[in-house]
Amino acid sequence: MIAVAGNIFEHILSEALDEEFTELLAVEGIRIERIVSTGQASPPGFWYDQAWSERVLVLSGSAGLLFEDEPTPRELKRGDYLLIPAGRRHRVEWTDATEPTIWLAVHFGSLSSSGAAEADNPLSELSVRSVSSLRKSED
Amino acid sequence: MIAVAGNIFEHILSEALDEEFTELLAVEGIRIERIVSTGQASPPGFWYDQAWSERVLVLSGSAGLLFEDEPTPRELKRGDYLLIPAGRRHRVEWTDATEPTIWLAVHFGSLSSSGAAEADNPLSELSVRSVSSLRKSED
Repeated sequence: MIAVAGNIFEHILSEALDEEFTELLAVEGIRIERIVSTGQASPPGFWYDQAWSERVLVLSGSAGLLFEDEPTPRELKRGDYLLIPAGRRHRVEWTDATEPTIWLAVHFGSLSSSGAAEADNPLSELSVRSVSSLRKSED
Repeated sequence: MIAVAGNIFEHILSEALDEEFTELLAVEGIRIERIVSTGQASPPGFWYDQAWSERVLVLSGSAGLLFEDEPTPRELKRGDYLLIPAGRRHRVEWTDATEPTIWLAVHFGSLSSSGAAEADNPLSELSVRSVSSLRKSED
């Protein structure tokens, strides 16, 4: 079965140490997830370099997303969406410190390597996982 | 090119007669659009019967979505998402009369017939179209 219904603003852990990733849909070639950030940023010197494209939409909170080829971060606030083309290196400079930043992220195109697992299980149960690629700043 | 960036809550015509559809992403097998409803409902007796699956997410406003095989509409409010499996007949019983209802709709799976046009133009410019499948009630 699949995550048939739910509310994207519920089950927010505002004091979480790590960002929280909830997969909403994974079919061949596409994966949609909710990401909840609570002040985390990419570690110093870390760059995402993805083989697939990603569209992000900020549903609440705000964030600064820096492309390596741009001088300053783009500020994303509620409702803002942005395309991150495959291979365009980027990092999260900051996320809102006062309220959770809820992202809807759509990953698509050239998912053959990293997206293989999702493609094998096309309509998986709603899954919540927590990863440590982004951590809250220690200061 | 593609719709690189924007804000999903902007450019709302709150007095529009028809629903407004804005395509945010169309690649092979998937199409994501914003739908803005301002009180419209499906015409009497009309049922959507889609060959593909659709995930809807209500970002603002509210709506009543009725499946033909259920006795009463499901009320969707801000943040609620719902899967509409391919072939499950449904209709929009009502949308919020007091504020615009903004939907994010993800169409996926078995788009070969109706989605062919989008697949031919995988990264199309942001396009806004207005259709008349839903109209405001005349009363």
